[in-house]
Amino acid sequence: MRNARGFARNSARSKRGKSAASLDSLKDRVAALAAEYRPGWSLPGAFYSDEAVYRAELERIWRAGWLFAGHSCEIPKAGDYFTLEVGADSIAVVRAADGMIRAFHNVCRHRGSLVCTEAAGHAKKLVCPYHQWTYGLDGKLLACRGMGDDFDKSQFSLKQVAVEEFEGLIYLSLAKKPWDAERARKVISTLARPQGFAKAKVAKTVNYLVNANWKLIWENNRECYHCNVNHPQYTKANFDHFNADDTTPRIKAQIDAAVRRTEELPSQVDPAATRKDGGMTSFPDVDNNIWFSANRTPLADGYVSESMDGKNVAPLMGDYGEFRCDTLRIRTLPNFWNHSSCDHAVSTRLLPVGPQLTSVRVWWLVDANAVEGKDYDMAELVPFWQLTSEQDWEICERQQRGVNSSAYSPGPYSKYKEYNVDAFVRWYMKLLGVKGVEQPRAKDEFELSK
Amino acid sequence: MRNARGFARNSARSKRGKSAASLDSLKDRVAALAAEYRPGWSLPGAFYSDEAVYRAELERIWRAGWLFAGHSCEIPKAGDYFTLEVGADSIAVVRAADGMIRAFHNVCRHRGSLVCTEAAGHAKKLVCPYHQWTYGLDGKLLACRGMGDDFDKSQFSLKQVAVEEFEGLIYLSLAKKPWDAERARKVISTLARPQGFAKAKVAKTVNYLVNANWKLIWENNRECYHCNVNHPQYTKANFDHFNADDTTPRIKAQIDAAVRRTEELPSQVDPAATRKDGGMTSFPDVDNNIWFSANRTPLADGYVSESMDGKNVAPLMGDYGEFRCDTLRIRTLPNFWNHSSCDHAVSTRLLPVGPQLTSVRVWWLVDANAVEGKDYDMAELVPFWQLTSEQDWEICERQQRGVNSSAYSPGPYSKYKEYNVDAFVRWYMKLLGVKGVEQPRAKDEFELSK
Amino acid sequence: MRNARGFARNSARSKRGKSAASLDSLKDRVAALAAEYRPGWSLPGAFYSDEAVYRAELERIWRAGWLFAGHSCEIPKAGDYFTLEVGADSIAVVRAADGMIRAFHNVCRHRGSLVCTEAAGHAKKLVCPYHQWTYGLDGKLLACRGMGDDFDKSQFSLKQVAVEEFEGLIYLSLAKKPWDAERARKVISTLARPQGFAKAKVAKTVNYLVNANWKLIWENNRECYHCNVNHPQYTKANFDHFNADDTTPRIKAQIDAAVRRTEELPSQVDPAATRKDGGMTSFPDVDNNIWFSANRTPLADGYVSESMDGKNVAPLMGDYGEFRCDTLRIRTLPNFWNHSSCDHAVSTRLLPVGPQLTSVRVWWLVDANAVEGKDYDMAELVPFWQLTSEQDWEICERQQRGVNSSAYSPGPYSKYKEYNVDAFVRWYMKLLGVKGVEQPRAKDEFELSK
Repeated sequence: MRNARGFARNSARSKRGKSAASLDSLKDRVAALAAEYRPGWSLPGAFYSDEAVYRAELERIWRAGWLFAGHSCEIPKAGDYFTLEVGADSIAVVRAADGMIRAFHNVCRHRGSLVCTEAAGHAKKLVCPYHQWTYGLDGKLLACRGMGDDFDKSQFSLKQVAVEEFEGLIYLSLAKKPWDAERARKVISTLARPQGFAKAKVAKTVNYLVNANWKLIWENNRECYHCNVNHPQYTKANFDHFNADDTTPRIKAQIDAAVRRTEELPSQVDPAATRKDGGMTSFPDVDNNIWFSANRTPLADGYVSESMDGKNVAPLMGDYGEFRCDTLRIRTLPNFWNHSSCDHAVSTRLLPVGPQLTSVRVWWLVDANAVEGKDYDMAELVPFWQLTSEQDWEICERQQRGVNSSAYSPGPYSKYKEYNVDAFVRWYMKLLGVKGVEQPRAKDEFELSK
Repeated sequence: MRNARGFARNSARSKRGKSAASLDSLKDRVAALAAEYRPGWSLPGAFYSDEAVYRAELERIWRAGWLFAGHSCEIPKAGDYFTLEVGADSIAVVRAADGMIRAFHNVCRHRGSLVCTEAAGHAKKLVCPYHQWTYGLDGKLLACRGMGDDFDKSQFSLKQVAVEEFEGLIYLSLAKKPWDAERARKVISTLARPQGFAKAKVAKTVNYLVNANWKLIWENNRECYHCNVNHPQYTKANFDHFNADDTTPRIKAQIDAAVRRTEELPSQVDPAATRKDGGMTSFPDVDNNIWFSANRTPLADGYVSESMDGKNVAPLMGDYGEFRCDTLRIRTLPNFWNHSSCDHAVSTRLLPVGPQLTSVRVWWLVDANAVEGKDYDMAELVPFWQLTSEQDWEICERQQRGVNSSAYSPGPYSKYKEYNVDAFVRWYMKLLGVKGVEQPRAKDEFELSK
Repeated sequence: MRNARGFARNSARSKRGKSAASLDSLKDRVAALAAEYRPGWSLPGAFYSDEAVYRAELERIWRAGWLFAGHSCEIPKAGDYFTLEVGADSIAVVRAADGMIRAFHNVCRHRGSLVCTEAAGHAKKLVCPYHQWTYGLDGKLLACRGMGDDFDKSQFSLKQVAVEEFEGLIYLSLAKKPWDAERARKVISTLARPQGFAKAKVAKTVNYLVNANWKLIWENNRECYHCNVNHPQYTKANFDHFNADDTTPRIKAQIDAAVRRTEELPSQVDPAATRKDGGMTSFPDVDNNIWFSANRTPLADGYVSESMDGKNVAPLMGDYGEFRCDTLRIRTLPNFWNHSSCDHAVSTRLLPVGPQLTSVRVWWLVDANAVEGKDYDMAELVPFWQLTSEQDWEICERQQRGVNSSAYSPGPYSKYKEYNVDAFVRWYMKLLGVKGVEQPRAKDEFELSK
């Protein structure tokens, strides 16, 4: 009874508003607040705390787009399931009897109880704990004692949630008409295939409740302007923090050498680096339906893995043949990013809890056959991304407190270093229905790299 | 300073709205939400979380009806008092000098401080701790140093709260014109008299804060459709979980035998069973002012008490002459139910704290002369209803999370098993002023049993 | 990450509302609630819990007036700083290179992160931890790597906050046109000068989060009607709890003797008592811009200091030449009071966190050269005001719960004992823009004493 309390109350603060009148006033309020927005500058403060804005985001983004849910290797057998919460919506993701992954609103069609009550588990059928209405792994209502013989069970399946699987990454959409996912599937699948997510195992997860609006976490993620001082581990391994304004000839030579290292090695399976510059590839682009980005990016000299000392911390994953220094990077808006080295992969999932509260889960994956204590050691595997993540959450919580001030006013983005923060904010504003915002065209590195 | 915090903030979230304009908009909002309601189906989700709905309930139900407050045996002597909180309203229930029980708003007429600051206590006079304004046990202002000689004390009595006592059960009403209580008094008093609540003592109380709307707790209470799997202890002792659709001839014979057992015994004081079927008596009925229900119900073979093994766990209470297997059951809306065996009684009181938070208190009573350790043992007395209660709170908290989902939609009630949930929901909607809801007529078992 | 949570969420609940429409509706709501107010009576309940009222107060009072921030002795060297939070607004108070005290909104002009992240510290420059935008101690933006050569840094100074220092007491104002402070400076500085705040040191601070509206804390502070029973320590040392209605000839003689004691002593520096009666000097007076009050007040016979036994608990402060029994008292609305004995000083600062939550800090100061363990002992220095303060917070939290009741209605103030509570409430209502409230003229004791 105790555990669920804070959570439940929080998530409930921001629901309802279905009637036409309340949606109109929502729209009016968002439009009024958006009038203070100036492209190229950070968002007006209300966008990080206002309940109406939050409700609009749930509607236009979180219940419209594709959300990373988890890894297919977490539910290998028919009947395996896990649950997640998007705002106040609980979703069950299930491996069905036919081996396909399906997702349902985890809400009994009888009186609305949660059906799956554990964060993860295994079940032959999905049985509501309240009155034992029993659903198949395909969501169909199979039994409901006491409802009488004339009751039409076919009308009371669990409500379906759309699912896509990209090479072991499970996505779901709460929308009736989700965003188009074909291009995302092609780009992500092609780049992710050799990583072997589907034959990986989860070595570790850490859950965070971050006192910051989810957009602050993305804005932090979309630039490495803050990395030099805040991420001592990350910047040793990477080139992202070098941009057009501070990539010296020496650094450029290092990047080129790093790119060449991976291009020159003979390999059947390892694709070479697609990212050949410092900084970050341009993304997202709402006009071209680009809510995803993936690339292979070289690491600094001496790093074959994003680890504290650059050495590998686990055996090779997937189809990789050698300990090479490229990393796979995937991001999908609004809630996922992944950094994968040849030996391990780290996934980060955001879920909104309230205007100023975001639930974050971080997964560390290794090859399914790797044995803890023998093939890998938590003390080596975990610190690089645990430190980097927690450094960022602290930044975001400080920023949340600052943008809550009545004295906060939007500030200008650096064109060298924050082009992707700007792109994210424009993408967001356009999805919210704000007029007159131009979206720069994202480069298609995947296409270019072919 | 620390303890009161969460509570105070919570209760304060849902107050005010006195001006005519805000009451109108309240009415409009409730009416808009009620448009989604379909009789025979569970309530639309907003009814379990919306602040406006909660304010309307406080006004139309909690500050209109009769609320169980506590037991008269808790305040045996003049000057004994206890306090309780109905939403943000603190009430003091006091045994006055004339032996009568009175209740007052526990709010000083000077600057509004709480007057009685303990959950229960004893006082010759009620003295506000702030400036020592002093009230008699009848609520009259007796002294207020510093206000000057021309100050008319008669205008500053504590605000009275209406009180009724039904054979040791204390009820109060915050209404100017409370619901009619005459029929309730007659039915409850007649059936409760032999139980001897007034000469009982409280052996144990447990307080819960349940993260669920108070209506979910009632809806859970009004059916035993959920009992088979959720209440292994309860279903061994009772027949309620058998309804018209699953009462086999064998079960019907068991019920008949149980009813006969109590009818056939010669007894001056023990009334025989009034409930002669499985399932639950139909209740409530707003059109006939039936917000209460009471009956004597047989227990299963081998059970003389609602205890873990069916044996008595304390000496006989009240006027009972023998360890018989009937139980007294009383329910009064919106906040009380009681199950009393021949040897002990268990009372449950609900009080709303917020749209998604309900304070619940459970009392275990035994005969006033019973001695702990000698005549009864907590480990035998408490588990049956502690387990059953906590099983229900967990159910309700899971349901709250489900109905908070944007995907929740009302589901159909079983006509065999949930007729009383439906009756409760219709009662509620009619009290809220929703038009076009029909209320089935409640059976008057008390009348029928005569 | 954990610590800031409750705080951040709380403060965020009450922000925004900048658009003209929302300010209008704010004004309408406050006006509607004010219609229930009756001068001479306590405030209607909504004034202690309503979000709209709270937002109006932030606008009309907290972001308009002069707020006590801290003591200049806390930041003796250039680069020393401390931070404080007024509602959701974080402010940094800094000793600049020129030795002057300056204050800034602690919000980076880039993306709004908090700049100073500690409660207090030392820095040569103010460097935002996010992207290292670097500000001088005068708030000017000195460096912002990555913004390009054409970036006009002069437009991005930290937003200035007005500062006044009165003999070691630091005040700030978030207003563009703060209230006039000239008379306050003259009165407070003249009376405070011999106390030597500027050459004191902080011996102890205690922070409280009080579950009460800030006005309840002031209303408590503005009368000693509650002292007799609630403050056993305080009433032994003082005469404030005697008013026109209960100052007997014996008490009047004691007061006169106490006043004479300080007048008769030959002294260069110690000003004699300005307060020559029991009770409290009349204050505030919005029509005459009197938001401050200061006097020198005699202590009871046997008390040279507000300590448990009346004996001094530390060496003499400031310019005092003898252990005399006068005390300095300063109050400034909306957030400060100070009681200073010859040997130690106690400052209390209020900051609003939400409608029902106030952050309170209490400082104990002694002479800068006093050495703990040798010249003073915490166990002697702290209890008098720690006990008195905590007695008051408990009173205020009980009153908050009472005024939250739907049954609370305003009560009458005693003309003998609560004239200053009434004056405070009238001052407040006039600042909120409520029409038709008359403000009694405050006596100018300082003027009278000359």
